Amino acid sequence: MRMYDLIKKKKNGEVLTEEEIKFFVEGYTKGNIPDYQASAFMMAVYFQGMNNHETSTLTKYMAQSGDTVDLSSIPGIKVDKHSTGGVGDKTTMVIGPIVASCGVPVAKMSGRGLGHTGGTLDKLESIPNLTTAVSREDFLNQVKTMGLSVIGQTGNLAPADKKLYALRDVTSTVDNVSLIAASIMSKKIAAGSDAILLDVKTGSGAFMKTIEDSIGLAQIMVSIGEHVGRRTIALITDMDRPLGNAIGNSLEVMEAVDTLKGNGPDDFTEVCLHLSANMLYLAQRGSLEECMKMAEEALNSGKAFEKFKEMVVAQGGDVSFIENTDQFEKAPIIHEVKAHQEGWIDKIDTESCGIASVVLGAGRESMEDIIDYSAGIILKAKLGEKITKGQTFAVIYTAKAKAVQEAENMLREAIHIGSIQPQITPLIHARVTKDSIERF
Amino acid sequence: MRMYDLIKKKKNGEVLTEEEIKFFVEGYTKGNIPDYQASAFMMAVYFQGMNNHETSTLTKYMAQSGDTVDLSSIPGIKVDKHSTGGVGDKTTMVIGPIVASCGVPVAKMSGRGLGHTGGTLDKLESIPNLTTAVSREDFLNQVKTMGLSVIGQTGNLAPADKKLYALRDVTSTVDNVSLIAASIMSKKIAAGSDAILLDVKTGSGAFMKTIEDSIGLAQIMVSIGEHVGRRTIALITDMDRPLGNAIGNSLEVMEAVDTLKGNGPDDFTEVCLHLSANMLYLAQRGSLEECMKMAEEALNSGKAFEKFKEMVVAQGGDVSFIENTDQFEKAPIIHEVKAHQEGWIDKIDTESCGIASVVLGAGRESMEDIIDYSAGIILKAKLGEKITKGQTFAVIYTAKAKAVQEAENMLREAIHIGSIQPQITPLIHARVTKDSIERF
Repeated sequence: MRMYDLIKKKKNGEVLTEEEIKFFVEGYTKGNIPDYQASAFMMAVYFQGMNNHETSTLTKYMAQSGDTVDLSSIPGIKVDKHSTGGVGDKTTMVIGPIVASCGVPVAKMSGRGLGHTGGTLDKLESIPNLTTAVSREDFLNQVKTMGLSVIGQTGNLAPADKKLYALRDVTSTVDNVSLIAASIMSKKIAAGSDAILLDVKTGSGAFMKTIEDSIGLAQIMVSIGEHVGRRTIALITDMDRPLGNAIGNSLEVMEAVDTLKGNGPDDFTEVCLHLSANMLYLAQRGSLEECMKMAEEALNSGKAFEKFKEMVVAQGGDVSFIENTDQFEKAPIIHEVKAHQEGWIDKIDTESCGIASVVLGAGRESMEDIIDYSAGIILKAKLGEKITKGQTFAVIYTAKAKAVQEAENMLREAIHIGSIQPQITPLIHARVTKDSIERF
Repeated sequence: MRMYDLIKKKKNGEVLTEEEIKFFVEGYTKGNIPDYQASAFMMAVYFQGMNNHETSTLTKYMAQSGDTVDLSSIPGIKVDKHSTGGVGDKTTMVIGPIVASCGVPVAKMSGRGLGHTGGTLDKLESIPNLTTAVSREDFLNQVKTMGLSVIGQTGNLAPADKKLYALRDVTSTVDNVSLIAASIMSKKIAAGSDAILLDVKTGSGAFMKTIEDSIGLAQIMVSIGEHVGRRTIALITDMDRPLGNAIGNSLEVMEAVDTLKGNGPDDFTEVCLHLSANMLYLAQRGSLEECMKMAEEALNSGKAFEKFKEMVVAQGGDVSFIENTDQFEKAPIIHEVKAHQEGWIDKIDTESCGIASVVLGAGRESMEDIIDYSAGIILKAKLGEKITKGQTFAVIYTAKAKAVQEAENMLREAIHIGSIQPQITPLIHARVTKDSIERF
């Protein structure tokens, strides 16, 4: 078999066989297939696409290209969750505890923030002394004893994806739905859970800007998951507005804690409950309605909050910060952004809000950048809300005096105030299972 | 400027600027742009194409990427010729002498055979002692003194093309008309002639299988040539049959000599006269009609044959072989292929005839293969001719006893005998100039 022939076949729009895809993934991972052939192949895939079977096969061999996590020693159905990335997306800190407190084990490997989206690891690490660098053994033990652990990736999971993603990143071949789906799902499959809930973000702050594109990506990922025997469901959730009010690491921890205490923003709480219910549903805890009740109960009873504190303790974090979030260090500069006119907030460029938070120090432009945990933004008015002239609609937190004006300008540009009350789109747009697409 | 952005732009179907194309060619030639970005870019070009201006610009910078030949010390308008490659294409050995004997200097760098097509250098080197490895100085002197030299490439002409072609060859990005045109024209432009005649082959033995594709390629190449100030004309000539009767190196030299003596096959003679007339026309020797008369006179008077002998002598060849071609060593095995039925030769798979000659030892499958100069095929019946059962329609020449049956089978398969007299297409299908396409 020659890589040349695979490139040619895909270039001509033909379907690749399982053997051919295996040959590519294994050959490329081992270094037998050079980058220049892989990149030409990726570009051919960009133009000609892959069908669901090809995509599932690609994912399967990518998942098998390195270490895989064996969660079989943990009893019960293990459910993982993956978000395609958004602004203010602190759901893991709430839904992990909800689901675990209902007795469903959550063994989750999370990522760091890059570009305009934050990462759960950075958020968790803003809790003093908390570590996400946990050994495989400690990770499994923690899930066994308390049902929940959120850590950074351990071992060499899906090295084919790592190598391919690095190549796609410099050859403009990232934006293909099959390749995106394979990249996400190969890591999730290697991470070992029995079922996977996908939170596919859609809108101005998401990778996928339209609902249809998001549903398309969701369908492919669900198809991949089911193809390899992992029950998979996707929710399409809104990213035409930041999720919740807080953007920035310790600011988001505080908002997660508020939510776990029942005082979180309505939009964020609602999304967390839907995600949690679907995870419980995947764990076969009952009908979706029953699972929703279970999630609400876990939140309202304080069980979920107790589970979160338990996890913080287990991972070495100073739980007093969770018990009293006033202890978190405040940013030296706190600056209010006030409306220049009255009107309705009718449109938010969510990605720009994310970038503004990076400018303030809350995120990274490259993996080497150091994060200021206290930096970020608190939104004081939501999409669809009416505000008066002079009203504060956002508060900036930073240590960088020079960044204040730039971030303020970005927020003024991003958060549009119009003269007509806008129609507000739902927070959950659709639910995709292997058999159905429900739109809300 | 970043190569990433150029890939993305082309992937999205945008037009690249001159600066961007220059950045790519220079960066890739110097090794600043890695192969994996160049191959992704080539694949994007394959799918999105390049307009004429982009293609001309690409060609210009590829031509400037290394040495260029300065022919300015040779008086007069220097005219080059390029064939896109065919089977039995020995035209250079006839038209070089015709044109040079009319006083138009021909300073030609030719190539070697690869795959199913032969190469002029191999053919010339079948003349004992003749060398095509001539220094730049001797090359120029020979053209100055006798008006004609045909040699292998000297110096580092168009290294960007060399590097890119090698990459395209292993990434399935050869078959794009802009990239093909840029590859051919960059070398021709670097080779320094003032005007270029292109012989674009079309049909079963050519790279371009249809007349429309061939005209398309011709138009782009003419546009490139004119864009950089070289007068350029293309003839679309037929390759739905081998050109002439001989396929194989010394066999083709003998046929070229016969033709220069006025005894060549009609089809080959006709194509040579048209090509020569157009080269003379490009050298501004009169109207196309006048140039045709001039070419005929050069052939009929024996002037062209004298010029060929002069060139053989100048390049160290044993001219006695040209004076008496019986001296050429004969292949040890000479095998006649006789018709199994009567009928008309109504279709020839010309590429297969070329491959059969390679099987017999006349060509190379890889650049390291050694050629048997005496091996090849003489066709004894032409496309459209009626033959009787038992009539010899081809003669095989080889030293490889084992190859005889395979080559015979290939020829029987390639040369189709049907029951109805076929309509024969013209030898010259079209003539493309910057202003017009004439179809014949």
